[in-house]
Amino acid sequence: MTARGNLFIVSAPSGAGKSSLISDLLKDKPADKQVSVSHTTRNPRPGEINGQHYHFVTVEEFKALIADNAFFEWAEVFGNYYGTSRKVIEQTLHQGIDVFLDIDWQGAQQVKKVMPEAIGIFILPPSKVELEKRLTGRGQDSKEVIASRMAQATSEISHYAEYDFIIINDDFDTALGDFIAIIRSQRLTGAGQIHTQNDMLKDLLAE
Amino acid sequence: MTARGNLFIVSAPSGAGKSSLISDLLKDKPADKQVSVSHTTRNPRPGEINGQHYHFVTVEEFKALIADNAFFEWAEVFGNYYGTSRKVIEQTLHQGIDVFLDIDWQGAQQVKKVMPEAIGIFILPPSKVELEKRLTGRGQDSKEVIASRMAQATSEISHYAEYDFIIINDDFDTALGDFIAIIRSQRLTGAGQIHTQNDMLKDLLAE
Repeated sequence: MTARGNLFIVSAPSGAGKSSLISDLLKDKPADKQVSVSHTTRNPRPGEINGQHYHFVTVEEFKALIADNAFFEWAEVFGNYYGTSRKVIEQTLHQGIDVFLDIDWQGAQQVKKVMPEAIGIFILPPSKVELEKRLTGRGQDSKEVIASRMAQATSEISHYAEYDFIIINDDFDTALGDFIAIIRSQRLTGAGQIHTQNDMLKDLLAE
Repeated sequence: MTARGNLFIVSAPSGAGKSSLISDLLKDKPADKQVSVSHTTRNPRPGEINGQHYHFVTVEEFKALIADNAFFEWAEVFGNYYGTSRKVIEQTLHQGIDVFLDIDWQGAQQVKKVMPEAIGIFILPPSKVELEKRLTGRGQDSKEVIASRMAQATSEISHYAEYDFIIINDDFDTALGDFIAIIRSQRLTGAGQIHTQNDMLKDLLAE
């Protein structure tokens, strides 16, 4: 029996390094890990591949999916629809692939409601001083813009306690190692192994 | 604040490779990991060091510890007392050191009763055929001896579902990697990090 994949929710304030961690994790295109691919009704841009960057669908198809309760969550942005399909994620998990959802705390709460077994990982910067440095960028932004970014980051950070794991991204390689260890360990939980290794366990316990 | 260590209970049928995994994990004497050191009233053998191989105590001291409820579990074997001290383990965890208890399912149940936060890891051989091969040894034992070993192993295996994680030791390096990933991930749980990183989180959320 193929091991079912796990669904990981990854959240962080900007400046924590979440995108770099996810990119690095997937840079060699591992067969057993992928980010969730959203549905959208907007037109593909040059170079965008259906099923890889987005699932491109018509408005009629999208509305049928809404009616079918296929989405964890969906939204209309500037006349285009975007959504995360529970069905696609379920199919991917069923193929033994871990799926990574790069979403904020509000999205995380919605997903946890529907799939409580989803594993939440929160990435934090190591200190407020360091966060401010990372959000200040190249010094071209006004104090007000930076203050607004800090306020938004602080608001996201205030939800850290809702996550199963917390990674502090001080040293990138350490944080990446932490990330990989969490993902690997979740393939080894008793509940998961009992499901996956059912035949082997029966064999071991046979008279 | 120093991260509190975790208590790991490691159980397995003989032939699963548990001792090799624990030895390999600790072979470079890492500062943040150690096996639990038992108390005993028997005399030290040549080369045995107090506090490293055992805590050597007198019968009076041992009985005082029993009266003080200091042990998870203790037993008298051939006139000597042996016990696992909860106090020593607590002190070690408090120093930020992960402690490994190499015990069977009965010991595991006792420890889980007293410290439900202890993390149980069960090591399994990959198949019954392979287990039989490993338990047969050099072919010098009678069928009855081997059958009795197999029965004992099967009885231990029947408790796998009581553990938080299950490692299948087919390839040793993979199993060791699994073991290390579980240990590392348990330093990153939300509950643990909130405790350890309390000051940092306050700093990040300060106005």
